[in-house]
Amino acid sequence: MQAGVKPRIGIIGTGAIGGFYGVMLARAGFDVHFLLRSEFAAVAENGLRIDSAVHGPLNLDPVQVYYSAADMPPCDWLLVGAKTTSNADLAPAIVQAAADGAKVLLLQNGLDVEEALRPLLPESLHLLGGLCLICVHRVGPGVITHQALGSVNVGYHSGPCYDQAERMTLAEAAAALFRTAGVDAQAMPDLQQARWQKLVWNVPYNGLSVLLGASTTPLMADHHSRGLIQALMAEVVRGARACGHHIAPDYAGYLFAMTERMPDYWPSMYHDYSHKRVLELDAIYGRPLASAKAVGCELPKIEALYQALAFMDRRNR
Amino acid sequence: MQAGVKPRIGIIGTGAIGGFYGVMLARAGFDVHFLLRSEFAAVAENGLRIDSAVHGPLNLDPVQVYYSAADMPPCDWLLVGAKTTSNADLAPAIVQAAADGAKVLLLQNGLDVEEALRPLLPESLHLLGGLCLICVHRVGPGVITHQALGSVNVGYHSGPCYDQAERMTLAEAAAALFRTAGVDAQAMPDLQQARWQKLVWNVPYNGLSVLLGASTTPLMADHHSRGLIQALMAEVVRGARACGHHIAPDYAGYLFAMTERMPDYWPSMYHDYSHKRVLELDAIYGRPLASAKAVGCELPKIEALYQALAFMDRRNR
Repeated sequence: MQAGVKPRIGIIGTGAIGGFYGVMLARAGFDVHFLLRSEFAAVAENGLRIDSAVHGPLNLDPVQVYYSAADMPPCDWLLVGAKTTSNADLAPAIVQAAADGAKVLLLQNGLDVEEALRPLLPESLHLLGGLCLICVHRVGPGVITHQALGSVNVGYHSGPCYDQAERMTLAEAAAALFRTAGVDAQAMPDLQQARWQKLVWNVPYNGLSVLLGASTTPLMADHHSRGLIQALMAEVVRGARACGHHIAPDYAGYLFAMTERMPDYWPSMYHDYSHKRVLELDAIYGRPLASAKAVGCELPKIEALYQALAFMDRRNR
Repeated sequence: MQAGVKPRIGIIGTGAIGGFYGVMLARAGFDVHFLLRSEFAAVAENGLRIDSAVHGPLNLDPVQVYYSAADMPPCDWLLVGAKTTSNADLAPAIVQAAADGAKVLLLQNGLDVEEALRPLLPESLHLLGGLCLICVHRVGPGVITHQALGSVNVGYHSGPCYDQAERMTLAEAAAALFRTAGVDAQAMPDLQQARWQKLVWNVPYNGLSVLLGASTTPLMADHHSRGLIQALMAEVVRGARACGHHIAPDYAGYLFAMTERMPDYWPSMYHDYSHKRVLELDAIYGRPLASAKAVGCELPKIEALYQALAFMDRRNR
């Protein structure tokens, strides 16, 4: 980053995640450009509004908003906040909006999401992954509620940087963007480890919100669902270890306690289910199960949850 | 049984199971007396009606029907078709309706249901268990639909018979009652083994019907739910083996194939859930899990299913 010149940032897929971080970055003075489809007209007319329990009401109006990536200026950073299931469809837009040597950062959960997108991007683009620990959801076109948290863990995946020091420098640069915007962020030396770590939360809460039709507060209030959450967390940690990724012994307990202190929250998978959208089952369940199985590690409760959710997902559409 | 004298039979809890077998026995010439509570008036007025896909329409009218066990004549056999969760409440009625040395037969699923009832009965009563493989459900007061199957496996639990040969003789006598009434029945030398064997069907289909809101046909049509059913069956077989009960290697496959040929069926637990009744989770999940755990055998998918169902059951009332 040249001194004094803030990089230009493109947001690909402006849902709750893309909208929240995009607005935070724009308010910090970054030149942020938003690609939208279904909500283009609403945001062009009324801007983006975030009701944040952490930062207060945040408005961005006017918004630099585009219906087509072809109209966007070349961006140094592209933040992808769309669902993992739409990455292949979005690849052409990402390529179109990218400046030379741009950094593409997937703000998505699950395993292997970069692997699926990588072959669709030119080799000159850097690809990074970001794990957002945040309670945020879209309540209407261009209107987002931010209930709690917000930190981002960023790791380098692939691209022109092969040297670990260079890779960390780019991950640090991404984390610095967020911190400049008032968002806690950290560069992670191992993206896969960071993705497994995030699964410790996503595997139990996303799936159980759909399976049991329940948000975090009732799930945390019942003896049996608490036991199930803890057992699922323990299986994620075991799967990560089998795949060679260490997760700190107290990390699951930290997330469990954090969720108890959180406001009542409906995870994104519940919103997807209730809107009859495709669930991100492959990224959050299928890939981790396959990775663990490939090294001889069975995760039976996660597998049962996945099988049940796959049945529900198929019936839901 | 004296030659030429058919034993008197009392039905304690005339739902789908008690009603079906009671009517079959009455039509075969047995002197059958039915204890009913909520449906007493309807059955006293209109009799019992079974729409059977196997036997055709079956009507019993008038019915020897009682609102109070105190009014029943002493019965040689008492068939209990109520839910396992109501056994303790029904114990006084069972004792009241029992002739000297009567045989009490629990037509119920799950593990340890006799253990829970035994202390509430005098030692002079024989206690047996019966496992019904049948697709039957109540459609209205005194009106039952019988869709398929019907066989009963009977085993002796406890009472004045200590000798294994005598125990088998009584189990055979029970099976003979059913066969006289045109119902396939078999005496089992080991009731616990028979109960575990029945769990191979009940554990997957009862629980998944509630968890996924699905009857057997859609559950058998989807790749993921099929895999989950088979995994749950395999865990039941493993739990049985750990507890010292052998289940034939092809038994789970037999039940799986049989369910594919069955008409679409909603298991009883689904009806209980939809009517906001207490689910038989302890008998069908809690006890088998505890028995297996006591001998060091974990059944993780069954445990996950139990934890999820327990959450749903608690929320449902």
